[in-house]
Amino acid sequence: MKDSSVAQRTVFFISDRTGITAETLGLSLISQFEGIPFIHVTLPFVDSAEKARETTQRINQAYQQDGAQPLVFATIVDPEIRSLLEKCDGFYIDFFKTFIPGLENELKMASANVMGRIHGVGDSNVYNTRIEAVNYALNYDDGARTNGYDTADVILVGVSRCGKTPTSLYLAMQFGIRAANYPITEEDLHSTQLPKALRPYQHKLFGLTIDPKRLHAIRSSRRPNSQYAQLAQCENEVKTVEAMFHQENIPYLSSTNLSIEELATKLMVISGIERRLR
Amino acid sequence: MKDSSVAQRTVFFISDRTGITAETLGLSLISQFEGIPFIHVTLPFVDSAEKARETTQRINQAYQQDGAQPLVFATIVDPEIRSLLEKCDGFYIDFFKTFIPGLENELKMASANVMGRIHGVGDSNVYNTRIEAVNYALNYDDGARTNGYDTADVILVGVSRCGKTPTSLYLAMQFGIRAANYPITEEDLHSTQLPKALRPYQHKLFGLTIDPKRLHAIRSSRRPNSQYAQLAQCENEVKTVEAMFHQENIPYLSSTNLSIEELATKLMVISGIERRLR
Repeated sequence: MKDSSVAQRTVFFISDRTGITAETLGLSLISQFEGIPFIHVTLPFVDSAEKARETTQRINQAYQQDGAQPLVFATIVDPEIRSLLEKCDGFYIDFFKTFIPGLENELKMASANVMGRIHGVGDSNVYNTRIEAVNYALNYDDGARTNGYDTADVILVGVSRCGKTPTSLYLAMQFGIRAANYPITEEDLHSTQLPKALRPYQHKLFGLTIDPKRLHAIRSSRRPNSQYAQLAQCENEVKTVEAMFHQENIPYLSSTNLSIEELATKLMVISGIERRLR
Repeated sequence: MKDSSVAQRTVFFISDRTGITAETLGLSLISQFEGIPFIHVTLPFVDSAEKARETTQRINQAYQQDGAQPLVFATIVDPEIRSLLEKCDGFYIDFFKTFIPGLENELKMASANVMGRIHGVGDSNVYNTRIEAVNYALNYDDGARTNGYDTADVILVGVSRCGKTPTSLYLAMQFGIRAANYPITEEDLHSTQLPKALRPYQHKLFGLTIDPKRLHAIRSSRRPNSQYAQLAQCENEVKTVEAMFHQENIPYLSSTNLSIEELATKLMVISGIERRLR
């Protein structure tokens, strides 16, 4: 046992495939426990008895080193591989084993027991929808093109560096939504009227705004001491663009305290835009 | 009850935040049950008693319409909101409620019971790492720049349309990895030597390849009947680029049967590149 009052805990995320499901729920769960120094280890593609034995050894070693039982979050489909892993010295939770029997009972059907169902390739239409949405977001990033908004699901608008590009890309990657984005620049801000290129698409617009101080910090790290990064400049741009959103009846969110996931999912709730991917 | 032999089932993914965790595990679980027509409904930001009651009504209506009990996968932190939802007529599973008590016991600590821990903004360093990685992937997409590879974690190489761009963006968004990508074009394929711009970075290169028939289909939908899309052209490019990978000792994967998630996570395992985000 280490000297510190709270022992370090190694947390393993183990899967026969990508590990994304085990990580997503596992991280959500441990985020509810504060003050414990968690060490994360993701081990994907544990898809053979040999790899299961290696993994078990690694877990047992972590127990020795930490002096505290590692947490193990797993999504393992194959019962043989799972039974090997369950013998480890960790606090082992398998998300599939926990829920599959109850679902089999409720659905009156045996589960397929097949690995890689969810983050696999699956339907090639789904794959194409996703790639096309990513290409769309790239082609219509930062106002690069404005002819082609007819096929946009949403056009994000806001001042430079408020988070439009990552939000567009996330909408494309995660949900297959075609998201263009258009920067409201200084020349657009002489009035609170919409820029000409956007006027026919008012119903597709969604605004992003940001706290001027945060914008000032982001721009300053990009272009230190520029006019563009001045706090007064940021305040003025944000104030005008928010007035534009109000006047033109454009729904908007602030990126200041929201992650990209939160921005994207809130935007979908507010605008009613449906995902194209599942 | 509908006439069809297997009743439609509505599946709800419910959360007080983005719903991403509930969706990720819920989709993994139902992917193991084949032949049931599942209808997906994601309801994020169910964060008040009123929204919980509305949600419960919606679940009960789905029961009426389907004639089969809806599945409800939830991640709800607040006990009051959860107790309202639990009264619904669905087959209700709360992923937090299932595991938090066991973890509290193991960790000898009460959980924080705070919403939005995982897909929230959290540490602004994490946020900045992610945004910088996305910007890096965009700036170094498709060989757009080659001066700046010093700060790349990985440089993806492969023929045009083999999946480099979405993989780079996914690595950035999900893991904060700085991934450049460089297309091996016809003029690079007169020999199996590495293009000049890549030679100093051999240790950072990771290859992507693809089945020539699939490449032919992808290119054909983009530029029908072009020389670029011809099957013979695709076969030749793929053959030469794979010879280059072998000769230059570049690890590689085929994107033909792997999703973007699988490509990204396998690449990390093979190359040993560590995530910068958590």
